Amino acid sequence: MIRVAVVGGAGYTGIELVRLLLGHPGFEIAAVTSATDSGRAVEELYPALAGCGLSFVEPDVTALARVADVVFLAVPHTAALALAPGFLDAGLKVLDLSADFRLKDPRVYEAWYDTEHTAPGLLPSAVYGLPEIGREGLLGASLVACPGCYPTATIIAAAPALESGLAIPGSKVVVDAKSGVSGAGRSATASTHYCSVNDSIAPYKVASHRHTPEIVAALSEIADSPVKVSFTPHLVPMTRGLLSTVYLEATSGLTTADAVEAYRTRYAEEPFVTVHHAGRMPSTREVSGTNRAHLGVAVDAPSGTLVVACAIDNLVKGSGGQAIQCANIALGMDETAGLAHAGPVI
Amino acid sequence: MIRVAVVGGAGYTGIELVRLLLGHPGFEIAAVTSATDSGRAVEELYPALAGCGLSFVEPDVTALARVADVVFLAVPHTAALALAPGFLDAGLKVLDLSADFRLKDPRVYEAWYDTEHTAPGLLPSAVYGLPEIGREGLLGASLVACPGCYPTATIIAAAPALESGLAIPGSKVVVDAKSGVSGAGRSATASTHYCSVNDSIAPYKVASHRHTPEIVAALSEIADSPVKVSFTPHLVPMTRGLLSTVYLEATSGLTTADAVEAYRTRYAEEPFVTVHHAGRMPSTREVSGTNRAHLGVAVDAPSGTLVVACAIDNLVKGSGGQAIQCANIALGMDETAGLAHAGPVI
Amino acid sequence: MIRVAVVGGAGYTGIELVRLLLGHPGFEIAAVTSATDSGRAVEELYPALAGCGLSFVEPDVTALARVADVVFLAVPHTAALALAPGFLDAGLKVLDLSADFRLKDPRVYEAWYDTEHTAPGLLPSAVYGLPEIGREGLLGASLVACPGCYPTATIIAAAPALESGLAIPGSKVVVDAKSGVSGAGRSATASTHYCSVNDSIAPYKVASHRHTPEIVAALSEIADSPVKVSFTPHLVPMTRGLLSTVYLEATSGLTTADAVEAYRTRYAEEPFVTVHHAGRMPSTREVSGTNRAHLGVAVDAPSGTLVVACAIDNLVKGSGGQAIQCANIALGMDETAGLAHAGPVI
Amino acid sequence: MIRVAVVGGAGYTGIELVRLLLGHPGFEIAAVTSATDSGRAVEELYPALAGCGLSFVEPDVTALARVADVVFLAVPHTAALALAPGFLDAGLKVLDLSADFRLKDPRVYEAWYDTEHTAPGLLPSAVYGLPEIGREGLLGASLVACPGCYPTATIIAAAPALESGLAIPGSKVVVDAKSGVSGAGRSATASTHYCSVNDSIAPYKVASHRHTPEIVAALSEIADSPVKVSFTPHLVPMTRGLLSTVYLEATSGLTTADAVEAYRTRYAEEPFVTVHHAGRMPSTREVSGTNRAHLGVAVDAPSGTLVVACAIDNLVKGSGGQAIQCANIALGMDETAGLAHAGPVI
Repeated sequence: MIRVAVVGGAGYTGIELVRLLLGHPGFEIAAVTSATDSGRAVEELYPALAGCGLSFVEPDVTALARVADVVFLAVPHTAALALAPGFLDAGLKVLDLSADFRLKDPRVYEAWYDTEHTAPGLLPSAVYGLPEIGREGLLGASLVACPGCYPTATIIAAAPALESGLAIPGSKVVVDAKSGVSGAGRSATASTHYCSVNDSIAPYKVASHRHTPEIVAALSEIADSPVKVSFTPHLVPMTRGLLSTVYLEATSGLTTADAVEAYRTRYAEEPFVTVHHAGRMPSTREVSGTNRAHLGVAVDAPSGTLVVACAIDNLVKGSGGQAIQCANIALGMDETAGLAHAGPVI
Repeated sequence: MIRVAVVGGAGYTGIELVRLLLGHPGFEIAAVTSATDSGRAVEELYPALAGCGLSFVEPDVTALARVADVVFLAVPHTAALALAPGFLDAGLKVLDLSADFRLKDPRVYEAWYDTEHTAPGLLPSAVYGLPEIGREGLLGASLVACPGCYPTATIIAAAPALESGLAIPGSKVVVDAKSGVSGAGRSATASTHYCSVNDSIAPYKVASHRHTPEIVAALSEIADSPVKVSFTPHLVPMTRGLLSTVYLEATSGLTTADAVEAYRTRYAEEPFVTVHHAGRMPSTREVSGTNRAHLGVAVDAPSGTLVVACAIDNLVKGSGGQAIQCANIALGMDETAGLAHAGPVI
Repeated sequence: MIRVAVVGGAGYTGIELVRLLLGHPGFEIAAVTSATDSGRAVEELYPALAGCGLSFVEPDVTALARVADVVFLAVPHTAALALAPGFLDAGLKVLDLSADFRLKDPRVYEAWYDTEHTAPGLLPSAVYGLPEIGREGLLGASLVACPGCYPTATIIAAAPALESGLAIPGSKVVVDAKSGVSGAGRSATASTHYCSVNDSIAPYKVASHRHTPEIVAALSEIADSPVKVSFTPHLVPMTRGLLSTVYLEATSGLTTADAVEAYRTRYAEEPFVTVHHAGRMPSTREVSGTNRAHLGVAVDAPSGTLVVACAIDNLVKGSGGQAIQCANIALGMDETAGLAHAGPVI
Repeated sequence: MIRVAVVGGAGYTGIELVRLLLGHPGFEIAAVTSATDSGRAVEELYPALAGCGLSFVEPDVTALARVADVVFLAVPHTAALALAPGFLDAGLKVLDLSADFRLKDPRVYEAWYDTEHTAPGLLPSAVYGLPEIGREGLLGASLVACPGCYPTATIIAAAPALESGLAIPGSKVVVDAKSGVSGAGRSATASTHYCSVNDSIAPYKVASHRHTPEIVAALSEIADSPVKVSFTPHLVPMTRGLLSTVYLEATSGLTTADAVEAYRTRYAEEPFVTVHHAGRMPSTREVSGTNRAHLGVAVDAPSGTLVVACAIDNLVKGSGGQAIQCANIALGMDETAGLAHAGPVI
């Protein structure tokens, strides 16, 4: 069994990692940290994990490096900058779920996050952890920069169109994305108050969300030229789930049948991706609790638009599950280990 | 007091009309019909209206024409085709909430609704009931074709950009719209089952929703040239509310401040439209239960996109409330009569 | 027009008062205070009130006493103890929505609220503001102690049974109550976080909720002997609404028909109370946004239990609406003024 | 691998069985039937099971008996009466999730279900499938009558109090239960329409729910004397989850600490039951997707009431999961096989 530590285990992303790792056949949890809840039983905060026997410990790099082979960083940005170098020096593999190593250009990071990038020397070796786009680079990787939830769904939705010429060269990519509230994290704020969210939908951070440069960078690399992206997230009254509806300029004469076929071919070997038949669109419920991405593809011929919707669970494929998928690949394990369970059907 | 009849009063749109008319200072409800629930007390179906004293009656044109001056048709398409001529012949004003008189070209209607248009002779005199776009035509109108909920929010969102050159000529209009479940009506189906909808979001009828030609026609008339529209509706876990997020090609150099200012100027005199300041986006909750449309406007400069979000209550401004607003105008009453109440704040 | 001030207008109770008062024909809002949001426009916090023209001011007693005839205190307990004497001295009528003047015995207050009662001299003249139980005392009252939301629904549900002998003398009253999240107020906490509440139900404060002594006192007064009450509140995933399901020991041979009839007789003259026919139970949705209380009554003969369910909107009949109802009575106005509107039907 | 068939696999209970059985190490699914959806792929109805490879077949007893060793009947009452004898004759073990074999007295069944019991000869050998109450009887059982969801949570909540004298002899048991909408099944009806349920709570079938005699019979057997039960179910706006709040007459002097301790002792060896420490109550979310029952125990001393709340997932511990637990026991397998996974934490 490979020993893993989860740093930042008391947040929504961290505890989801814990849940998934508890059912993983190749990993054992050596430590779960929380600076604020150190010393408390995990089940005291999260009674859903009654009986798991874990308690939170301090996030001490030296101590963790002694007990773990792999570390998952479920921490806010800048915290990973501070922690990753120590773990890497100690020989651990690092799966970073923060934004700190996702953008190759530290100036872009600094512009969007308004803080210095203190470990630019690690950026060249950091591998972007989206297996459906770049699985090879993950083999044996030491530092994986796990994508954001919005980029995960959006890139999976847009990549085949950009790779294969379903979209015209230079097509703008309009991304209208919808997320459940768990994407905002465990902090209690005015905007996560039940009464703010329930029975309502609203856009937020229009033209300013920090996942934008990550989407732009990934799609531009896929298209091999700069791609213009208009990204608008919305907050939806649901706990989990993320739907990215992506609009591209379809090439002339493209039909829904052709587009569905191209997507199915592109993802035929992917263990976690399903492309629905023409006429069916994905819901976030159908992937809830799983590491799956479900896609619906349609062409609106009169307006010349290719519409692709991708549904994921923001906490699994959009976060903890994908990090485990990357760790499985990096360590040479079965990529689906610990992630193959069916989700609740309704 | 003007006497009004509501035909199709047992459905969600019809009963919302009843609720609003009960509080209207200039209308009195002469009859509420329901073919299937005739003879039952309204409060038996809808205990929220306990004490209203109304009972459903048969939808008999002759009988209704004797007791009412104005009739609201809250019926499915084709039913209004059958009913409207009789009411008009009897001298009543007709507010039709179905799709039957919205499209000027009967061939477009027949193509999208897959049924014959049996009253094309009435189409020239039917007035599209969106006061913010065409108030003048409503004065004294006898037959008002009330817009669909999606067109209402979408046209209010897109019109200023197309009218004033905020969007480049020929800009495609990408419409990503989100509706609460009441928009699907009162019928119990697999897709309105609580467990299908709750805690999930999904697109539906992509590239095939019947509100598409209505949006295309209205925006093309506003732009005075054919407009390409890509319209994708989504079902959101909420009872009421509709958000239309509209994406247009911004003219070069357009700023958010300029765009907000242009929208505020355009709607300065509108009693039911609020344009939020730069940085604020509308939620559907904030207009719930009211006849208001709240707009947020932003420019995403790197991608050259004008983003406009419009939130309405699909059952009020998107349906029953707007029909009353149109009736107020058509009858020369105060446009806001019966519609000025504040909505629940949370 | 009578001039009113709302102290603590930025909270959920306060803003609901503002909403209702805006539609009241006899009151005009002279001031709305907020210590933390003083100087900001009301619509900046609550865009649902766009166009209302109000701004928050400091809660200064002297200044408010100059501009208002009536003051509503929508403040936490202890704050009303500090404010009420000054307003009363200045000759204003005080409608206190806090707990500070609800319990006649200051020692009970001090035991449950763990703080000194600093104005015990006002308790004898404070009138408990539940018109359905004690309307006469409210006529001309200067200080009204508005009931809590749980006591309102529970007392309305239990009173007829205790008054009339439907329940056996000495019957314990088991109260299983369910509230929407707005009852917890506007503070963002772990327990009001959307992800804590959504799609889940849980009891809270079992055997320790502060509304217990208020229920005990009221029911004991009605029964004219000490009543044992077991009160258990639950948090339900909804914004508004409160349902109190009350279980009493039925007298031998009592039938559902008899019990319904007795309740209907008891509340026949009440403008805001509806007792459903046998076989129908109330939902919180049907009273949402209104000042109404809807009751369902049933007898479970095999177990000898009288079951009464009462649904209210916790922010209206359970709070702001009832306070206005009391003010209407205290001032000799029509009791239903500003409160007669129908709620959203669905 | 033991071969299992699921009869009635297209309903909510059936598809939950399928989901759980897909992850079970000792069972393989030989057939899933649906009379109405025969021939369709399971994933066509339930895209959450994309890739499972199963299709619905006709519910033919002879054909199923050839391919399966164990059959789960996820069918409406009366359907199991028709099917069970054939399967038993063919030598299969039968796990019946309907109500047909739960009540030992066929006259009680006939009175509550208003239909003839056509297989009374099987009742003596049918074992009530609640392992926490009667595990021994399940060993080797051929016909297991799996309990209803409400009885499961209620009996687990009340049994220790009745067994051990925490409640006074003859104590009435007041059961106020709350269920998610999936408990009403997959049929689309007015009462499962999203707009009927969302943001609202209501009691239903007061004094008339068919789970009542099942609760009475089980508690009376536990108490070894007739127990009076007042059972009131409520419909809550959530998909899954069931909370039963049970009120009993506490023996004099009983403290919360003592009661918690007694419950912990009673359930110390149970793999799926957790009794929270004093002061903590369970939520349905914390058991969602799992076979667990979480209990909170409190004594309200002033009213002499023992309050016990039990939270389960109605589709797992309240239905499919418990049936698998019973099958595991009946077949001599590890009782927790296929059921030990952690649920989604948030």
